[in-house]
Amino acid sequence: MTIRYPNGKKFENKRILSRKKNVYKKDERYSNRGMTLEEDINESNQYYRSHKRAVIHKKPTPLQIVKVNYPKRSAAVVTEAYFKKPSTTDYNGVYRGYYIDFEAKETKNKQSFPLKNFHSHQIQHMKEVLNHGGLTFALLRFSLYEEVYLLEAEELIRFYEEQDTKRKSISKKDIEKYGYHIPLGFHPRIDYLKTIDKILENR
Amino acid sequence: MTIRYPNGKKFENKRILSRKKNVYKKDERYSNRGMTLEEDINESNQYYRSHKRAVIHKKPTPLQIVKVNYPKRSAAVVTEAYFKKPSTTDYNGVYRGYYIDFEAKETKNKQSFPLKNFHSHQIQHMKEVLNHGGLTFALLRFSLYEEVYLLEAEELIRFYEEQDTKRKSISKKDIEKYGYHIPLGFHPRIDYLKTIDKILENR
Repeated sequence: MTIRYPNGKKFENKRILSRKKNVYKKDERYSNRGMTLEEDINESNQYYRSHKRAVIHKKPTPLQIVKVNYPKRSAAVVTEAYFKKPSTTDYNGVYRGYYIDFEAKETKNKQSFPLKNFHSHQIQHMKEVLNHGGLTFALLRFSLYEEVYLLEAEELIRFYEEQDTKRKSISKKDIEKYGYHIPLGFHPRIDYLKTIDKILENR
Repeated sequence: MTIRYPNGKKFENKRILSRKKNVYKKDERYSNRGMTLEEDINESNQYYRSHKRAVIHKKPTPLQIVKVNYPKRSAAVVTEAYFKKPSTTDYNGVYRGYYIDFEAKETKNKQSFPLKNFHSHQIQHMKEVLNHGGLTFALLRFSLYEEVYLLEAEELIRFYEEQDTKRKSISKKDIEKYGYHIPLGFHPRIDYLKTIDKILENR
C-alpha cells in the first residue's frame, strides 16, 4: 500500500529502505558509510540497556528554537531553529554505579586524529567530570581502517592542551600507545564497556 | 507604584511583598510564571558547576528533525521539526562520584500531584538507573505554595504503579511524608544537593 502525506506526496521511509538494504549488505556497513559511528554506538547502548548492562543514552542535538507553529488538530511544528554548539559531551549514563561520560568522533585521516574535532567546552566539561569522580573518555574511529579506540579523558586533555606548542592532532601511534583498541563486534558493535572493565580493574 | 500588565491587570506578587523590594525584578518569576521550575533548576545547576559542587546539565529538548536548509554564507536552519517524547529524564550528571538523574515537574493543584506528569518511559528509565546504582528522583513543585519537594524514585515508582488500583495522583500529604521539602534560596534557588547529602548520610 502506498501511504501518502495529506498534500499527496508519496511517503517514503528512508530509514526502512536503508535498513532493508543492510539485510543484504550487512558486512558492507562499515565500508559504505551507511552506518555512522553514532549509529553503531546507539546500537551498542541499546544492547547494553536491553541486556541490563548499563543505562547510557545519547543526548539530543541541542537546537535553539525560534519559531513554533501550533496547527489546530495536529502536532506543534518547529519552523525555525538553529544548531547550537554542545556544552557537554554527547553520551552519558551509569554503569556499575559509575557515572560514564564520553564523546565519539571519527576521521578519514590515516595517520592522525585532528584535535579540532573537540570544542574547548567539551574538554572543560571532561575536566569537571574527572574532578567529580566520573569516568570520561573519547571513542575515536579511523574510518578508513574501521578501527575504534577508547582514549581516556586524561590523555585527550593532555594532547589538547599541548596543541599550541606541539601538534594539532594526535598521531595514530600515540592513540595506539595511550588508548585501547576496541575490536568490532556484531552485538554490540562497539563493546566499549569491556574496555571500561579493564580500566577499572587496573585502578 | 502599581505595576500593571499590558492588559491593565494589576501585578501582585505575594512573594515579593514578603521579601526585599530591591530584588523584585528577579522575583517576578513565581507569580507571573516568568521563571519556571526549569529556569530555577538551571540556575542551581549553573551555581553548582561554577562552585565545583557537581556537574549536572539539562538535556536538550528531543526533536525529530525533518528539514534543514543550508543557505550559502549563513548557518543551517531547521525548517521542519517535531517534538518527541523524551525516553529519559531531563537532568543528569555526577555528584560526589554518584550518577545523578532526575525529572522536574510542577502543578497548580493544591492537594495533589497528578501522575500523568510522568511518562511510562521515564518511570522505566528510573527503574533502570536504580538497578545500576544511580541516584534518581523527582523534583516536584506546587506552584501555588511555591513549595518544592524531592521525592526519591523508589517512592515515585510505587505511587505510579499503584495508580491503576489506587489514585491517579500523589496527595500532598504523602509527598510531605515520603519526600523532602527543599527550602527556596537565592543562590542556588533550589539547593537539592543538600537533600541528596542527607539521603546519602542515612544510607
